Amino acid sequence: MDIFIEPIGRLMNEFSKLPGVGKKTAQRYAYRVIRMSEEEAEAFAKAIVNIKKQVRFCSVCGNFTVNDVCDICKSRDHSVVCVVKEPKDVIALEKLREFRGVYHVLHGVIDPMNGVTPNDIRIKELLERINKENVSEVIMATNPDVEGEATAMYIAKLLKPLGVKVTRLAHGIPIGSELEYADEVTLARALIDRKEL
Amino acid sequence: MDIFIEPIGRLMNEFSKLPGVGKKTAQRYAYRVIRMSEEEAEAFAKAIVNIKKQVRFCSVCGNFTVNDVCDICKSRDHSVVCVVKEPKDVIALEKLREFRGVYHVLHGVIDPMNGVTPNDIRIKELLERINKENVSEVIMATNPDVEGEATAMYIAKLLKPLGVKVTRLAHGIPIGSELEYADEVTLARALIDRKEL
Repeated sequence: MDIFIEPIGRLMNEFSKLPGVGKKTAQRYAYRVIRMSEEEAEAFAKAIVNIKKQVRFCSVCGNFTVNDVCDICKSRDHSVVCVVKEPKDVIALEKLREFRGVYHVLHGVIDPMNGVTPNDIRIKELLERINKENVSEVIMATNPDVEGEATAMYIAKLLKPLGVKVTRLAHGIPIGSELEYADEVTLARALIDRKEL
Repeated sequence: MDIFIEPIGRLMNEFSKLPGVGKKTAQRYAYRVIRMSEEEAEAFAKAIVNIKKQVRFCSVCGNFTVNDVCDICKSRDHSVVCVVKEPKDVIALEKLREFRGVYHVLHGVIDPMNGVTPNDIRIKELLERINKENVSEVIMATNPDVEGEATAMYIAKLLKPLGVKVTRLAHGIPIGSELEYADEVTLARALIDRKEL
C-alpha cells in the first residue's frame, strides 16, 4: 500500500515534471487542486491542453504566437532586429517597454560540448531575414556566458560582410550594486568599456 | 498588447493559484508545458480533472480516499485512533511506518479568532466513533501551536468521561539538534517532561 492514493500520486508525479518541483512541493500543489472547485480544476486542465494546441512559433522571428506571424513582427519596425536565445528573453526585454524593433529567437546557442552546432539553431533564418528585409542594425542579446558570447561573435562575423551594423548589449557593473561586490571579470570589463562623461 | 500571448497568460494565471507560485515561477511552469509532448500535456490535464473526480473523504476517518472507506480504515487496528488536523498530517505519520492504528482527520482546529468553533470540525464524528467502535486510546496529534494545543485539550475533556485513554505527542528537543539553539518554550517543556533513565 503506497502512502498516497492513486489519483493524488499521479498528479504529484505530473507536477514533479515542472522545473524545481520536488515531491513535497508536488504534494502541496496536488492538495491545493483537491480544494479547488470542479470548474476551477476543469479550467486549469483546459489551459494546459490549450497552451499546447494554440501556441506555435512565429514564422518570422521564432517567438511564441497564436497566429502565423506574431504581434510584434506584425506591428513594429523591422529595421532593428534583436537576437535572443529563447522566447523568455523576449519577455525580459519587452518588460522594459524601451525597444521598438523586432526580435529573432535562436532557440539555443552554439554549444559544441553539448552537440549544438550553428545548424541546430535559427541562424540560417536570421541570414534570410537580413537578405530579405531592410535591416540596419542587429543587436546581439544572447546571455553573457561562454556559449552566448561565442554565438554572438559567430553571428557577427557572418553578418558584417552583409553590410549590417552588429551591436552587443553592454557589460558592466549592475546599477545599484557596489563595486566591492562585483566579480573580477565584470569589473575588468567595466574598466575596459569605460565611457567618457 | 499584453507581454504574454493569451494561452500562456491564461495558464500562468492558473499556475499562480498554487501555493507559493508567483508570476516568474508560473512563467517557467507554462514554458515547460509548451515543451511537453501533446500526450504529456493531455496526461497532466487529465490528472488534474481526475483528482477532483476521484478523491473524496473516507466516511469513517475523513482522510482522502477513492472509495467510501479508506485503505487504512479497512485494514488496520481500530482500537488506537490518532487525531490530526489535516490529511497531510496522516502522510507525515504514515511515512514513519511505525503507527499501526487508524486516524481521525478533524479538517481544522478550533480557532475562535478566525470563527472556527468546535462544531466546524469533525469532533462530533470522533465522539460517534468512540461510542461505536472499541477504542482504547486516542492520540492527539494536532500541531504544537496555540490552536492545536487548545483543540487537543478540548477533545481530551470530552473523551475522558467516556473512559478512553487520551494521550498527546511528546514535546521536547528535536533529535540531532543542539540545546543551545532550542527555543525557550521547547526547552522549558523538555525539562518539565524529563524522563527517568
